[in-house]
Amino acid sequence: MMAAPFAALRHYLPPWLQHYRRTDFAPDVLASLTLTLLLIPQSLAYALLAGLPPQVGLYASIAPGIVYALTGTSSLLAVGPVALASVMTAGALAGLAPVASADYVALAALLAIISGGLRVLLASLRFGFVANFLSASVVGGFIAGSALLIIAGQLPTLLGVTGVQGATFWQVLRNLLRALPGFNPLVLSIALSSLLALIACKAWGGRLLARLGLPAARADLLGRTAPVFVVGGAALVVAMLDWDGPGGVAVIGALPLRWPGVHIPLVSVDAALQLLPAALAISLVGFVDSIAVAQSLAIKRREKIDPDRELRALGLANLAAGMTGGYPVSGSFGRSAANSQAGARTQLANVFGSLWMLAVVLFASSAFARLPLAALSATIVLAVWQMLDLSILRLARRYDRRDALVFAATALCVLFLGAVNAILVGVVFALLLFIWRTSKPHMAIVGRLPGTEHFRNVQRHRVETQPQILAVRIDESLYFANVRFVTNQLAAWINEQAEVRHLLLIMSAVNAIDVSALEGLRELNRGLEEQGVALHLAEIKGPVMDKLVGSGFLAELSGRVYLSGHEALQALETVPTPDFAI
Amino acid sequence: MMAAPFAALRHYLPPWLQHYRRTDFAPDVLASLTLTLLLIPQSLAYALLAGLPPQVGLYASIAPGIVYALTGTSSLLAVGPVALASVMTAGALAGLAPVASADYVALAALLAIISGGLRVLLASLRFGFVANFLSASVVGGFIAGSALLIIAGQLPTLLGVTGVQGATFWQVLRNLLRALPGFNPLVLSIALSSLLALIACKAWGGRLLARLGLPAARADLLGRTAPVFVVGGAALVVAMLDWDGPGGVAVIGALPLRWPGVHIPLVSVDAALQLLPAALAISLVGFVDSIAVAQSLAIKRREKIDPDRELRALGLANLAAGMTGGYPVSGSFGRSAANSQAGARTQLANVFGSLWMLAVVLFASSAFARLPLAALSATIVLAVWQMLDLSILRLARRYDRRDALVFAATALCVLFLGAVNAILVGVVFALLLFIWRTSKPHMAIVGRLPGTEHFRNVQRHRVETQPQILAVRIDESLYFANVRFVTNQLAAWINEQAEVRHLLLIMSAVNAIDVSALEGLRELNRGLEEQGVALHLAEIKGPVMDKLVGSGFLAELSGRVYLSGHEALQALETVPTPDFAI
Repeated sequence: MMAAPFAALRHYLPPWLQHYRRTDFAPDVLASLTLTLLLIPQSLAYALLAGLPPQVGLYASIAPGIVYALTGTSSLLAVGPVALASVMTAGALAGLAPVASADYVALAALLAIISGGLRVLLASLRFGFVANFLSASVVGGFIAGSALLIIAGQLPTLLGVTGVQGATFWQVLRNLLRALPGFNPLVLSIALSSLLALIACKAWGGRLLARLGLPAARADLLGRTAPVFVVGGAALVVAMLDWDGPGGVAVIGALPLRWPGVHIPLVSVDAALQLLPAALAISLVGFVDSIAVAQSLAIKRREKIDPDRELRALGLANLAAGMTGGYPVSGSFGRSAANSQAGARTQLANVFGSLWMLAVVLFASSAFARLPLAALSATIVLAVWQMLDLSILRLARRYDRRDALVFAATALCVLFLGAVNAILVGVVFALLLFIWRTSKPHMAIVGRLPGTEHFRNVQRHRVETQPQILAVRIDESLYFANVRFVTNQLAAWINEQAEVRHLLLIMSAVNAIDVSALEGLRELNRGLEEQGVALHLAEIKGPVMDKLVGSGFLAELSGRVYLSGHEALQALETVPTPDFAI
Repeated sequence: MMAAPFAALRHYLPPWLQHYRRTDFAPDVLASLTLTLLLIPQSLAYALLAGLPPQVGLYASIAPGIVYALTGTSSLLAVGPVALASVMTAGALAGLAPVASADYVALAALLAIISGGLRVLLASLRFGFVANFLSASVVGGFIAGSALLIIAGQLPTLLGVTGVQGATFWQVLRNLLRALPGFNPLVLSIALSSLLALIACKAWGGRLLARLGLPAARADLLGRTAPVFVVGGAALVVAMLDWDGPGGVAVIGALPLRWPGVHIPLVSVDAALQLLPAALAISLVGFVDSIAVAQSLAIKRREKIDPDRELRALGLANLAAGMTGGYPVSGSFGRSAANSQAGARTQLANVFGSLWMLAVVLFASSAFARLPLAALSATIVLAVWQMLDLSILRLARRYDRRDALVFAATALCVLFLGAVNAILVGVVFALLLFIWRTSKPHMAIVGRLPGTEHFRNVQRHRVETQPQILAVRIDESLYFANVRFVTNQLAAWINEQAEVRHLLLIMSAVNAIDVSALEGLRELNRGLEEQGVALHLAEIKGPVMDKLVGSGFLAELSGRVYLSGHEALQALETVPTPDFAI
């Protein structure tokens, strides 16, 4: 009797919890330890990257992961602080409040709430598809530009120079060059040795551990957790040598940590409206990025990712982040992949990861006081360097230079116009290139391959043609932007070939005809008729035919409509001149 | 010896002059008389419509027609003042200077020069194609909105109320309603009788003249010239009854006419920049409108219109208009059609029309002093009413409601946001609808028509299918905005049909694949491979195949590429499971 309501409730649980097996528990808990080792340095570093006090990153590593685990559709995606959302947060808040001030922290939380609310709204309107308009080239260019921006932003911390500010990429670089002579040798040596240690761990760490007897997968995984050991080692050196005195090495310092309870930041409506474009940009980029990670993990496990539910889950995770003292979060590629490698079976690994982070906040915060910022910066630089994926650019350069142009334009705009404008420019540019291409469609004069029913381009194949018949395949939907181009080209071909009495349009690639194109075809039909040339159509697609029948155009047509080009040719070969011209 | 250089020079002459025949001379001169009878009332009325003193319309009827005749490619198109360019001029100059002031006149001339220069520039860059982006629905909606705007603007003149001003359509209507009680009965009676006379002439005039013994074509032509007689009659009545005293009927008054010599208006750079958007809008709309007229006349005469030369010729005509005291001009549908009907053979008819107008300016200007404005307004209202062509809207409502939406949106924007914004909104809206449609493409599961090599939609035809083969035709180019939609739909179909081992994509309607779509196909291929399903492609178009070969994708493909769907099916029918899954 009791089982029935529970069975109904079960439907509301996330997929991984509905079918949870006891045997998954131990692997999940084990994986959560690795996750925590990654989360500690990343959450501190990404918060600094966003211009926030480090503890905000710790808070953002607790609630969002649990909320996503309970609402998302991916069984492995790790949600929390990520580099891209952090640098976008810094960009959105620049100039609105002094960096790391209480107002700045409140605005960051508000940004998470707005972007979370937007995602929930978009998801409930089933508007997740808008993310489709961010092409691979726009996203790739955006990430590349952001990576450069982040690395440039870390240079002052790595060099130990202070007071380097600037609204634009150029200003930061120029001010950095001016401040360069005042660099701190101790800081630079910490930064360089951290960087070298991280690179060495990445390059040889796994292999070394494997030689020491660890299984290859386990060794590789331990290699991934190198940042926590490198940063910890740097902290140890600083503490032992007392390098963090006044004028010395900058460290995190004492963190005023508290129980991350729920509280909603009170900020003016004006500020909220001002944050709206950035919140939308963060929502879309974060969604595109997360869903790509979730889908690549899902393919291996034959799971299905539902984009609209995923968008809602990310929205709820951001609402949770904003209400518990955090800032915008997203799905992390690195931590999700580490989850998979560490043998995590379900989202329980992420839930436990969040709980460990809560324990860190409550009991181990004093351990961070003497962490040198330069070592954290080094972990950011290396993480971001790995994020920079130029494979799309290489593919685009080889395959379609227009896409490479979109990539480059978006990347440059991130540096010089900011994230929101970069996305706008990228999307509009990509759409304009698409429209440009469709406005000058490919058209081919075709003939019949001897002995077959197939028609092919006369310039590519040896085909049969007839002097009184011009058969043309139009390789694009007909619409206002290309109909004049198409009809002009057809008229020019007809003028060149005085013997032509039949124009046969093969419509197999015409997926739609709009009103302007229909008017254009009517004019073409009338004009050809006055020249004694009949217009015939073949291979019209079903949906197009349905609309043409309703328009009355087929009754005006001087020629006929044929099911296939072959059928048309058979009929027209025996008709030297059109009926109306006799 | 002398013939050779002349023959070379001849090449630079306009087509009609290169082959001018003596027998064309008499018909051309005769037609030019009809043209002049149309031009006199229209040039005065359209100048008033633009907010300009009436003589500006007369000036704009002289030089532009001659310049177009010498540079254009149409043998009949009559270029001069038109309603659409006039109302757009009024919109562009609203608020920049007091209506009909010297500054206003100078700005109107500047507008003509800027829009002329823009057209010459666009033409020399071979950018005439940008006019293609104005779809039939945008142009139709724009004309409909402008017609309503013009008619509303004529109401104060028709009613004889003064001081009705307003920045927006609503303001004009509201102020008109307030001023209504002060209407002038004499003015209203002139307006109504002019309107009735014009309507009667249009409805019965031709037939009546035919009954009186005139040949039908000649009678119809004389009917077209009714406005000059109606306006002349109204002037006679006003003069005889002395209705044009103070507080009486508004008349044109004495025109300060002069020889229309060349002078360039001196206006600030700021003003020029301010006029730029409007100049671009006038250029594009005027071009689209003129070329449609030119092409419809050319089809009947088997002439060829070259869009870029046409754009340049219209640009030069506008430069001439601006430098001789005129304002923006364009090709007139009504006067061009009258040219054709009056038997004009070449542009010489327009050249003589311009010369007659020069004679009118120099010797007959006093005849206009007592022309009542209300009668001129009546001719505008009727001309504009005829311009209002709702056939596109009717076709769109039946054929494609999205086009009807674009029409309505553009028309409303003309009324409430102004001409420039209306064109922007219309073009962007039309492009977004196009992108929206291509982002959710039609896809059909297809099977083979028994006994043929043709594949058709399983839902439309009785076709043969195989349980282990899913053949899908994609009816759209693949690009970033639709690739996720397409791959999700394919994955859903595969999940529904557990027996499927081969997915065959029929690519006959895929005219392009961009980088994002290529990435999507690669992911699909990998995902299907992990599920034991092979991906095959058939009927790839030549240009698409060329690019795919270069991309390396075909080497990754788990299945094969076939020339035709038929060939693919023959090969796959004998393969129960893909090679890699065995």
